[in-house]
Amino acid sequence: MEESIILAVDGGATKTTLTVRTSSGKCLFEKTARGSNYQTIGETEAVTVLGQLLCDAYISAKVERIHVAVFAIAGIDTKADLEAVTHIVKQSLKRAPFIIEELLIENDGHSTLLGLVEGKPGALLIAGTGSIAFATDGNGKVVRSGGWGHRASDQGSGYWIGRQILQAVFKSEDGVLPPTLLKQLAFQQLNIYSIDELVAWLYQPHYTNALTASLSPVLNEAIMLGDEQALVIAQQATQELSLLVKSSLSKIEYGVAPFPLYLNGGILQHNSFILERLQELLRNAYPKISFNLCSERPIEYIAKRALL
Amino acid sequence: MEESIILAVDGGATKTTLTVRTSSGKCLFEKTARGSNYQTIGETEAVTVLGQLLCDAYISAKVERIHVAVFAIAGIDTKADLEAVTHIVKQSLKRAPFIIEELLIENDGHSTLLGLVEGKPGALLIAGTGSIAFATDGNGKVVRSGGWGHRASDQGSGYWIGRQILQAVFKSEDGVLPPTLLKQLAFQQLNIYSIDELVAWLYQPHYTNALTASLSPVLNEAIMLGDEQALVIAQQATQELSLLVKSSLSKIEYGVAPFPLYLNGGILQHNSFILERLQELLRNAYPKISFNLCSERPIEYIAKRALL
Repeated sequence: MEESIILAVDGGATKTTLTVRTSSGKCLFEKTARGSNYQTIGETEAVTVLGQLLCDAYISAKVERIHVAVFAIAGIDTKADLEAVTHIVKQSLKRAPFIIEELLIENDGHSTLLGLVEGKPGALLIAGTGSIAFATDGNGKVVRSGGWGHRASDQGSGYWIGRQILQAVFKSEDGVLPPTLLKQLAFQQLNIYSIDELVAWLYQPHYTNALTASLSPVLNEAIMLGDEQALVIAQQATQELSLLVKSSLSKIEYGVAPFPLYLNGGILQHNSFILERLQELLRNAYPKISFNLCSERPIEYIAKRALL
Repeated sequence: MEESIILAVDGGATKTTLTVRTSSGKCLFEKTARGSNYQTIGETEAVTVLGQLLCDAYISAKVERIHVAVFAIAGIDTKADLEAVTHIVKQSLKRAPFIIEELLIENDGHSTLLGLVEGKPGALLIAGTGSIAFATDGNGKVVRSGGWGHRASDQGSGYWIGRQILQAVFKSEDGVLPPTLLKQLAFQQLNIYSIDELVAWLYQPHYTNALTASLSPVLNEAIMLGDEQALVIAQQATQELSLLVKSSLSKIEYGVAPFPLYLNGGILQHNSFILERLQELLRNAYPKISFNLCSERPIEYIAKRALL
């Protein structure tokens, strides 16, 4: 039997990876370019990034027929997003004359979960700069909770933790909260020496949310040193993240069967306190849950999802 | 005795008012132009706005000698801000050959409080888009709490309340919180019909924080209708605002003497639940406190401050 060929794209806000592989896992092409989130760079630029990657793949991989192409794109959160990204993908595909038998365009977390569970039930919690949970019943139904973005929520994410750290530092400066080690540790990390410098850093002209999220590693350090405020923030983050998981599981009407929860993103990979407490909280609610820290790049899971 | 002449400027993010008055209160000139916050429009533009107003005042008011000029400018929060604004004001003054005997450059809230208390002790709580408290001992010492801006705090402000409303709506959508009337009321106000439309509204290209703050009036409506989530948010807001006031009062070592607290900004002017509960909370802590809702425009208080 001839091998089938898949094409998988992991399109994020900061980078985009495209790979062409055989069903047995042989890599025919892989390249990473800049981000392709149309909300950040606009539709025309998104077409340019994806179109160029597809062109390169067409020339290098030397295959014409693609069995399944999965475009797993960050920021597909509403029907309007899906329509916009579908248009972008179709425009991009005009630049490379692939014959594509099945074309899937999905939110990146959605694709990642399907690649992780490989047809079985399971859930995925991502707590990086933002936070979101996905769950699937193993029968094609995929649900999500959270992921509403930094302007309102993203509870338990790196951005949310960074905000809480800043709030604690400012409140402590006002005497509303007691002194906290978070101040010294944040100052150290930013190489600054005063609250005025912290304010200048926070309101710098080229501010992005990633800047606030970049403060989050300070939390674990402060916890190790026994800081009370850091502990409060970590407990809140854990509580919020556990609610996201519970919400997604209730949407697929999770029963009592054994069930893997995949964990990904900087907060879960690096904040051992949050990771351990979260497992504790969730194990109490779901005795048969198992935990798996994601160790591969998302593109690996997305490629697996294409092969399903 | 000859009357002295004052010049007062209320420089905000969206508009700038300049007035020239006599010490007996006669208005010789007043004009309002666009915002002069250099963090928003840049130093050159700020000089243009202030310089033009000063030019107009010089031509119209027909006075040369100014006893006291007060530039009460939003966004003077750090030493670096004060230096930048001082530079801007001095550049602007080159366009109008006033002879200024005393030049004061201050944060706008600081000036407003001094104009309100007219030399006596007192405090000012502002909860509009942002939140901040000022207190003075009546002997020239002025302290502040909060006002750290939307990127980390502004607890109890319109922006903060808008965020909490959005969080409650999204959490309720995820089933993490029970259904809330805040959803219907927010949809009504925005003239939308779905969560997808709410997300599109929140992440629109020309988003500003004022947009999130514009949701805050919905809170009072929901409270009147007995919504549990709205009540929780209002209680948190009240708690946060009371902490701001307490923090500022502790910085001036407030004792037990009678003491006015001036209240300003949309949240305190329009959210009766928060206003009443806040007064209750503060009266318990400071039995001799009195409350005064600010009824005049800030420029009136800033002009009074110049006459002190």
